[in-house]
Amino acid sequence: MDTEINKHPHRRYNILTGEWILVSPHRTKRPWQGKTEKNNVEKRKTYDPSCYLCPGNSRAGGETNPDYKSAYSFENDFPSLLPKAPVKDFENGLLKAEAETGICKVVCFSPDHSLTLPLMEEKDITEVVKLWKKEYHELGGKEDINYVQIFENKGQIMGCSNPHAHGQIWSQKSIPTEISKKSKHFKEYWNKNKSSLLGDYLKQELELNERILAQNEHFVALIPYWAVWPYEAMIIPKKHYQHIGQLNTEEEKAFAAIIKKLTIKYDNLFETSFPYSSGIHQIPTDSKEYPEWHFHMSFYPPLLRSATVKKFMVGYEMFAGPQRDITAEQAAKNLNELSEIHYLNH
Amino acid sequence: MDTEINKHPHRRYNILTGEWILVSPHRTKRPWQGKTEKNNVEKRKTYDPSCYLCPGNSRAGGETNPDYKSAYSFENDFPSLLPKAPVKDFENGLLKAEAETGICKVVCFSPDHSLTLPLMEEKDITEVVKLWKKEYHELGGKEDINYVQIFENKGQIMGCSNPHAHGQIWSQKSIPTEISKKSKHFKEYWNKNKSSLLGDYLKQELELNERILAQNEHFVALIPYWAVWPYEAMIIPKKHYQHIGQLNTEEEKAFAAIIKKLTIKYDNLFETSFPYSSGIHQIPTDSKEYPEWHFHMSFYPPLLRSATVKKFMVGYEMFAGPQRDITAEQAAKNLNELSEIHYLNH
Ligand SMILES: O=P(O)(O)O[C@H]1O[C@H](CO)[C@@H](O)[C@H](O)[C@H]1O
Ligand SMILES: O=P(O)(O)O[C@H]1O[C@H](CO)[C@@H](O)[C@H](O)[C@H]1O
Repeated sequence: MDTEINKHPHRRYNILTGEWILVSPHRTKRPWQGKTEKNNVEKRKTYDPSCYLCPGNSRAGGETNPDYKSAYSFENDFPSLLPKAPVKDFENGLLKAEAETGICKVVCFSPDHSLTLPLMEEKDITEVVKLWKKEYHELGGKEDINYVQIFENKGQIMGCSNPHAHGQIWSQKSIPTEISKKSKHFKEYWNKNKSSLLGDYLKQELELNERILAQNEHFVALIPYWAVWPYEAMIIPKKHYQHIGQLNTEEEKAFAAIIKKLTIKYDNLFETSFPYSSGIHQIPTDSKEYPEWHFHMSFYPPLLRSATVKKFMVGYEMFAGPQRDITAEQAAKNLNELSEIHYLNH
Repeated sequence: MDTEINKHPHRRYNILTGEWILVSPHRTKRPWQGKTEKNNVEKRKTYDPSCYLCPGNSRAGGETNPDYKSAYSFENDFPSLLPKAPVKDFENGLLKAEAETGICKVVCFSPDHSLTLPLMEEKDITEVVKLWKKEYHELGGKEDINYVQIFENKGQIMGCSNPHAHGQIWSQKSIPTEISKKSKHFKEYWNKNKSSLLGDYLKQELELNERILAQNEHFVALIPYWAVWPYEAMIIPKKHYQHIGQLNTEEEKAFAAIIKKLTIKYDNLFETSFPYSSGIHQIPTDSKEYPEWHFHMSFYPPLLRSATVKKFMVGYEMFAGPQRDITAEQAAKNLNELSEIHYLNH
């Protein structure tokens, strides 16, 4: 279903945020003379005595990591949020601020310093999923924690300062902007159709089969129609779940399996440890009901043409709105042509 | 007026977009072991035979630049937008796209390959302002051009592929997301108070005098209370103007003067050619009335601690919302302590 519009500059609508993205398919031939990145292909040891995330090592905050054997979490030594705010909200004319509180955690994915998600075994990724679930319940269960943001910054160009595979969880009192945006659109659709916006979208994508990257019994990975980043992807549960806490044992495994599948494709694309930020969007933990919500995990990878040339979201993108060159369909095609076996294991 | 809240994690409200930003003032001591950038201090020649923006040279698209003597614009050889879209809008279930058309231009700031705005003479920056005005009127006057986005990406880390000082103009049919957001808030305030939201904010900032960076008879440069980027700044005209087309000859000079002042401070901060994206937000050119709007120019610079360590807007920022460490007040203080003479001219 390659429509004519896909060949010309156009805007696509993001049904979850209500925002538009400018697509310039004719522009892929633009030469690049700008900044390039290092190709990160150094092979790491399984243990690095100077790494503050390896088991048994001591951290910047002074504590020592236990000799952990699978996914392990601890409180961030340099948290952006603190559990207590000994201050009141502030308002003075047009200046307005609110106290914010929260808890920040670090999630080590594996004790092995040399691994990343695509190189880990499915059963070990399942342990990460289980830990995310546990943290979602535990943090979300605390008073004054109304939203739990699970995310990973992978690669130096995504601001990650330690190559030992890890993600983070920032949990906080207020509901973040991106969540409020999506809540609004889920809700509007739910009120009108009494069904899940993302669930219905998923059905349509499965029928069209043009942007699907992978699927198993419980999950689908696809490039959303409104993707912003060149190889942006989304993992959606087939069941209409509001948060990862609802996954059963079998579904945890299926989630781990599809994460592995997607990230292997990513690494294979430019034969590099593919950088991205990923995050899970799910319902607030403020004990309100959100039957309209459908949880999902998104991946925002910056690489555009090669392991060393990324897409910059700068001037126009910051002041007007996001812009991309290759279309979502081209991106899906490029990923679908790749092997499902990691290039390092060939 | 250093209030208690400024010392603890808090959120600040952006009156123009209605969005919040997380501020973590206690976190500035966090050690950095991640990615560092090159310090761009190479001295450039005034003419580079291989530069496609230097006068007399030929460009990627095959054309030859005239022997221009001051600010000069031409149509982008690799435009993201094209004047014609031989296609119709597209809708299929939950997929929605619209044809988009527009014109993209490049604006060379100076014929001299070695210069940047802070190193240019005020009278030559005034020529840039005059050209922006002209382009705003000319492009905005065309049928089907309803918004004119003027911006600059400065520095390789801002995706700029040629160090020859230049900006861009992308003008288009639809109104971009960021403009719609601001329109909404300008309008709400106008309907309630019959005055300019940004004008009233400016008055309050001038009284408080805590985030002001520079001013002259016609313009003020300040760090907005809700700044996202570490040294984000905003230039606001004192008169309630909707767009740069309204500036008179004297005001053009004053605009150039304050741009020079701000960018000299920027270069002096880390003794480097300070990277940023800047952009002018002003009213659409769709011939509707927007009495509520107050035009302004914003600067989003990524550097955080030094010429080589930048702030990454990644995981949390992408999935939840923006976060910063140093407060707007600290940033203003750091900039205000610097000399007004460019460090290369000391
Ligand atoms: O047009 P340029 O300078 O080649 O490209 C730069 O600015 C554009 C507009 O902000 C961005 O879309 C590109 O990602 C960036 O590299
Ligand atoms: O917490 P880290 O890994 O030191 O920091 C990284 O992730 C954070 C959350 O997305 C960002 O605020 C930082 O800019 C980034 O460098």
